[in-house]
Amino acid sequence: MRRALRLAEKGMCHVLPNPMVGAIIVKNGERISEGFHEKFGGDHAEIVALKNCKESIEGATLYVTLEPCCHQGKTPPCTEAIIKAGIKKVVIASLDPSDKVNGKGMEKLKEAGIEIELGLLKEVAEELNEQFYTFHKKKRPFISLKAALSIDGKISVSKNERIFLTGERAKKMTEILRSRHQGILVGSGTIITDNPNLGLTMVEGKEPLRIILGKESKIKNDSKIFRDENFLIIENSNLKELMNHCYEMGILSILVEGGHEIFSSFIKENFVDRYYFYLAPQILGQEALDFTNIESPVSLKFESVQKLGADIFISAVKNEHN
Amino acid sequence: MRRALRLAEKGMCHVLPNPMVGAIIVKNGERISEGFHEKFGGDHAEIVALKNCKESIEGATLYVTLEPCCHQGKTPPCTEAIIKAGIKKVVIASLDPSDKVNGKGMEKLKEAGIEIELGLLKEVAEELNEQFYTFHKKKRPFISLKAALSIDGKISVSKNERIFLTGERAKKMTEILRSRHQGILVGSGTIITDNPNLGLTMVEGKEPLRIILGKESKIKNDSKIFRDENFLIIENSNLKELMNHCYEMGILSILVEGGHEIFSSFIKENFVDRYYFYLAPQILGQEALDFTNIESPVSLKFESVQKLGADIFISAVKNEHN
Repeated sequence: MRRALRLAEKGMCHVLPNPMVGAIIVKNGERISEGFHEKFGGDHAEIVALKNCKESIEGATLYVTLEPCCHQGKTPPCTEAIIKAGIKKVVIASLDPSDKVNGKGMEKLKEAGIEIELGLLKEVAEELNEQFYTFHKKKRPFISLKAALSIDGKISVSKNERIFLTGERAKKMTEILRSRHQGILVGSGTIITDNPNLGLTMVEGKEPLRIILGKESKIKNDSKIFRDENFLIIENSNLKELMNHCYEMGILSILVEGGHEIFSSFIKENFVDRYYFYLAPQILGQEALDFTNIESPVSLKFESVQKLGADIFISAVKNEHN
Repeated sequence: MRRALRLAEKGMCHVLPNPMVGAIIVKNGERISEGFHEKFGGDHAEIVALKNCKESIEGATLYVTLEPCCHQGKTPPCTEAIIKAGIKKVVIASLDPSDKVNGKGMEKLKEAGIEIELGLLKEVAEELNEQFYTFHKKKRPFISLKAALSIDGKISVSKNERIFLTGERAKKMTEILRSRHQGILVGSGTIITDNPNLGLTMVEGKEPLRIILGKESKIKNDSKIFRDENFLIIENSNLKELMNHCYEMGILSILVEGGHEIFSSFIKENFVDRYYFYLAPQILGQEALDFTNIESPVSLKFESVQKLGADIFISAVKNEHN
């Protein structure tokens, strides 16, 4: 299953809004085939593994990181292909949380007499597809918040002035983060002050939908965000409604990039699933703009930290134990 | 010389206010003896290496990380012993910056006909003894600032309330830092609010002098800082005068532990040589107390970063290029 999870990861960025999935076929203790979901619209991992197999599959065991689907989507149901191939046992890391599947795929296999083992490396599999699980379980996009802070927690020297706190490597990392989300969200203030590109200039991938919160009339017509149709301006500042709207649009994940008011609102509404912080080697002092205006402390859990050029890059999640 | 520098490090904490020094004697391409300055008041590194030597030293080369002394201190001058031993060449990483030596030791050796090579791994040697070099060159103690911050740069939930932001491993690291400084400095506000011990309870070593800035009359008589005579209360808030006073007292280095006003003053006066930050996994929000009230940004250089339990530990220095 570990190998299947590593295979699954190869689909990163290319399969959105689908989950990353890996599959391995084992017979008589030997790996006889494997596959992963390579890109959105392409064959699912199980089908790739079945197609890749050069030997008789009759009586083999299939290891798959996500419950096989049982519905006709962009491709035919995987359960049918698995049953037809003569697989004897299926080991599944985690159930597919989407309403269309969620246990029904497993049932289909059981009905066909296939032995099922569920839950092997479940936590790892669910973390790999945290965006997908959060989207289906919470019925809203997975929210990542990305902020560049000075060591004293400021996001800019003053409210209407901007200096780039962080270096080139941080900018590139931001584009990598963008490529791993379906949407990117900023307040109209950021657009007016900075006129950012919000796209991918240094890394390859599909540009995320640019979601702007605020009044369209205040944004200049020649702003970079208008360079193509891949944007959305939302004037309603109710975040719950926004989350519902994005869920209905099928936006799996959003990277929230600022500024101060947007950060504060998302944290207050308890919508942030993951935090990415860049720390710049600066003390900006009391005149500078704070990260947030929240009033109740929020407890996090640091997951990783590394130097990134002259800056520090931190990944954190909400501390669910507090 | 690298080996001599590694030997020198073994004296850390034990030699204060002396510098850490290592020495190696090489003859015909072979290392025939070595030594380091083990503790304050004990033999200097060169003398240890000479005494340790079991072979004839005549014609050998001495590698030493700091210029040998030429004055009678707690021990006789090293230059005399080197000359008497018949050393042919001395390789010195860096000159001793103290007024009593500063080139005079090297001159004494030259006058005796000994060949000198100066500057091998000079930067490494000077960083190892940064406290000693700063003390003699700037004629004030080396100042380290240690602060525990939330990710949004706050040092406590409010001005008069304190929660321990950081965990056990951070507390132990703080004691390690204390053991590497001769003094530790806090404002009287911190004493009144927290009644801290400011000593060493988890690590071995000599407790630093506890320097308190503020009015003595406001501090309770049963405060922990009064547990023995190893404290100093300074009512004069002029930091330049304080630095002069500490220099005259021979205090090589001070760890500044807070709070807000003290941090701000030391940074404003440009007295901070090194920063140690603990980042706690918390967002404290707008009601919490800022790290400083400085008005002009200060640029730093991150030297290292690591996870320390649930926290992050960062070491930084002033960015001399800005």
